[in-house]
Amino acid sequence: MANLSALQIARYEYNPKLPSVLRNNPDEVVLEFGKATEAVADQAELKELFKNTYGKPEALFVKGKNPDVKKEIRVGVILSGGQAPGGHNVIAGLYDGIKAGNKKSTLIGFKNGPSGLIENDFVEIDDKFMDAYRNTGGFDMIGSGRTKIETPEQYAASMATAEKQNLDAIVIVGGDDSNTNAALLAETFLANGKKTRVIGCPKTIDGDLKNEQIETSFGFDTACKTYSELIGNIERDANSAKKYWHFIKLMGRSASHIALECALQTQPNICLISEEVEAKKMTLKQITNDIADAIAKRAENKENFGVILIPEGLVEFIPEMKSLIAELNDKMAQNEAEFNKLETFADKNAWLKANLTASSYETFSALPEGIAAQFLADRDPHGNVQVSRIETEKLLATMVERELKVRKENGKYCGKFSSYTHFFGYEGRCAFPSNFDADYCYSLGYTAFMLIASGVTGYLSSVRNLTKPADKWTAGGIPLTMMMNMEQRHGTKKPVIRKALVELDGKPFKEFASHRDEWKIKTSYTFPGAIQYFGPSEVCDQTTKTIKLERE
Amino acid sequence: MANLSALQIARYEYNPKLPSVLRNNPDEVVLEFGKATEAVADQAELKELFKNTYGKPEALFVKGKNPDVKKEIRVGVILSGGQAPGGHNVIAGLYDGIKAGNKKSTLIGFKNGPSGLIENDFVEIDDKFMDAYRNTGGFDMIGSGRTKIETPEQYAASMATAEKQNLDAIVIVGGDDSNTNAALLAETFLANGKKTRVIGCPKTIDGDLKNEQIETSFGFDTACKTYSELIGNIERDANSAKKYWHFIKLMGRSASHIALECALQTQPNICLISEEVEAKKMTLKQITNDIADAIAKRAENKENFGVILIPEGLVEFIPEMKSLIAELNDKMAQNEAEFNKLETFADKNAWLKANLTASSYETFSALPEGIAAQFLADRDPHGNVQVSRIETEKLLATMVERELKVRKENGKYCGKFSSYTHFFGYEGRCAFPSNFDADYCYSLGYTAFMLIASGVTGYLSSVRNLTKPADKWTAGGIPLTMMMNMEQRHGTKKPVIRKALVELDGKPFKEFASHRDEWKIKTSYTFPGAIQYFGPSEVCDQTTKTIKLERE
Repeated sequence: MANLSALQIARYEYNPKLPSVLRNNPDEVVLEFGKATEAVADQAELKELFKNTYGKPEALFVKGKNPDVKKEIRVGVILSGGQAPGGHNVIAGLYDGIKAGNKKSTLIGFKNGPSGLIENDFVEIDDKFMDAYRNTGGFDMIGSGRTKIETPEQYAASMATAEKQNLDAIVIVGGDDSNTNAALLAETFLANGKKTRVIGCPKTIDGDLKNEQIETSFGFDTACKTYSELIGNIERDANSAKKYWHFIKLMGRSASHIALECALQTQPNICLISEEVEAKKMTLKQITNDIADAIAKRAENKENFGVILIPEGLVEFIPEMKSLIAELNDKMAQNEAEFNKLETFADKNAWLKANLTASSYETFSALPEGIAAQFLADRDPHGNVQVSRIETEKLLATMVERELKVRKENGKYCGKFSSYTHFFGYEGRCAFPSNFDADYCYSLGYTAFMLIASGVTGYLSSVRNLTKPADKWTAGGIPLTMMMNMEQRHGTKKPVIRKALVELDGKPFKEFASHRDEWKIKTSYTFPGAIQYFGPSEVCDQTTKTIKLERE
Repeated sequence: MANLSALQIARYEYNPKLPSVLRNNPDEVVLEFGKATEAVADQAELKELFKNTYGKPEALFVKGKNPDVKKEIRVGVILSGGQAPGGHNVIAGLYDGIKAGNKKSTLIGFKNGPSGLIENDFVEIDDKFMDAYRNTGGFDMIGSGRTKIETPEQYAASMATAEKQNLDAIVIVGGDDSNTNAALLAETFLANGKKTRVIGCPKTIDGDLKNEQIETSFGFDTACKTYSELIGNIERDANSAKKYWHFIKLMGRSASHIALECALQTQPNICLISEEVEAKKMTLKQITNDIADAIAKRAENKENFGVILIPEGLVEFIPEMKSLIAELNDKMAQNEAEFNKLETFADKNAWLKANLTASSYETFSALPEGIAAQFLADRDPHGNVQVSRIETEKLLATMVERELKVRKENGKYCGKFSSYTHFFGYEGRCAFPSNFDADYCYSLGYTAFMLIASGVTGYLSSVRNLTKPADKWTAGGIPLTMMMNMEQRHGTKKPVIRKALVELDGKPFKEFASHRDEWKIKTSYTFPGAIQYFGPSEVCDQTTKTIKLERE
């Protein structure tokens, strides 16, 4: 790197905090096992699939003697899926643990995600290389990727690499899918009599890898704080200029945890929650009307401005849009060659009129043309509608503008409406990790080493009690099978770790719901500002509202 | 405010730094005057327009006796134009100065910009009110607005308010236009024998209110740091995911200082500078080709990702686009009723084909339809094309994608191209001011009081030597007429403060130009991270690269 920023240089000096138990010499810490566990559902099927790794006990590190820790080992690490702040610190904690065990032990990084394991594409990590990435954001140290290890050939290649590299363990840093993959890989190695153990680490800014055992996935804290900084700045701008409504889309395709957390941090006028939209079967028209109601009400108070948060995946949770997308995917796939010949939007529109069901065409034709075109233009390599490319924030702004125009003509709206749209996602995935994420990730990595040194496989690195200061945190391992069930994926039943959606009877949503009517009408903005790394503890070390509400 | 963030509470405790000379008791500081000044151009005309205020000397505060400072006074303050971080601290410095002079003195804030003065809409500022806004972003304390005081009626109303309020002075916080307005108001008050003095303060995130006398306008530092945080995060994401080109538009309609400063802070692959595009008469095609060249070159190195910065005003600096916009404005205004009847894009397109010159229609028809529609749809109340609503970032991404498709067909491009677009503006205008802006603004406000207490009018509050620590800063006043010349505005010649554009032979641009060929091809990103308020001085107190290059 040609030119390091002052912050990056300063962050190199930061010493991430470990749970107290891990501050002992590593050979003075042992795993204490609890009772055998069961999967959350489909126990019999999972037991059959994970013959060697199913039902292991939860485990917690406590003081005790573990001389095995000092053995020389060789470990590989993989960053999988989308970036999340703190990934480099997982590697740092793992590296420092390995070296604390035995200076001659080795850590290699597989490059660009799971494909690095399949292709034996790797880099050996040494002090100098590691030090350049401590406490930094991004996954650029070794790259990431979305390849899934699925086919027999991929499993065979993975085993071949592990054997060639003489790996004692592989650590996979990823979300629900990647950790499911970790469980399958652990099982495969054991079933084939290989020594390589597999440990997972819970990563995702989306916050949907969370359950009884996992208090939060790393990166959620930093990403939400970065988005909240920007939302707060925009709220302050809205409240100063007093003339714009800002429609802000936030990452979170399956779950709305990010939008909800940002709403708790910034108190916007409106925050849509996909899970609620689905549960209440809200139509696009209803959502539009609700927003227009709030705008009209604020206009009566001469407040022609506001801020609305929208989760990225929203359109997939609106029943008629979900049907439309499914039908578009089917029809466009079935008639790919024919459809791809159509050049203009008018031609495509005519084709859809003839080929979609009446109700889906009605939904489609009610969309603003610019947005409707996005459903057809930006398809993925399988020909499917790319939901992440649909500008839901513009869709809603346009629908609301239309609705307000009608109301104005009917004398039911007296304000001025002008909007701006934003999408925040890439802005937060690679921020410098907050102190919380820096500490949490380092602890996860260090714990992963301790699990390896304790001889277990198919476990998730687990650090808990996270609402307390780091010295009060606990460290241990969760058997990955414990968090799994069977789900339909692309037509076949597969073992997966359950995604955690926003629970409408959970404390974070209830806290939001108890305030939102007030926030909607009365300007109640909170301005979190930029993430701070060096200031007073109440500014620098507090984690998310979500975890506080859930765990305190 | 219902719920203050931890950062906001912590920032209340920050004591902004003043230049050493202003740390004396206010009655122990006097203005030392230099020689009479001249305007930068059109001296005779300006002397005629500013009979009472033209040609005053520059002035600097030094130690000395000034018992006048203790007089009880009544002052009004106005925030004018777009928000910039630090506006509240200008008010805080002014307030604290006034109260240090005489506890019985009063500061009132005119609400929502200059219209508050015209309409005598105001709020009296007391300790409690002031304390709620110290070191915070935004202009929400008293609001802002874009009304210009232009007509004889507006001047009369302003004088009536000043008289009714018994104002000794008005402080106008604004950009080039607002400070021109301050100069005219100062002249008007004097010419009419009124006692009210007028002092300006240099505000604008755009950085274009800058000259021999003004080292920088406030807000530029914080806004650029906020945008650079986001750009750095996106660069890190691009370098981790290795599959997207990010096209990022940044505020800066007339001048490209923001884009240039952000480029110096983050070292992106490409940063367009409007002033260079204009000077070199670059066409859209040329710009597209240049970007495509860089993308193709990086693809050869298997780096199918990158970051491109684009100043908001770019399209107005591309010669054929500038002509197109001018022609569209003319034609649509001349035929407003007829044009407004056209409903579909196809109808409008046909009309333009018949009514535009051939060259302008050629330019128009080469635009992607979605962008072309923005030229026609989002017009301002005068029917003009709203340049700030044109998604230049999407325009360039689409043109580049087309060009790369052609090159691929011709075997001249071997990469994969996928893009995301962003626009950063509202995200940075209301951030918590950096320590630099907090100190600078507080000093500007305090200096404004000292100028008032020294009896001058038509001056700009001036704090200089800004690349040094605050105790080395100087404070004084610049006669506003000194920075003015005459320019054509809407068909008539008017006195205005010259806007500072990016100088292609200035040090900041030359620094950028000396590195950009390397940055274009070789990934050289720098990650500034979030603004820090509490950490080591090299992280928290450094100001912009632009001012360092210009003044050190």
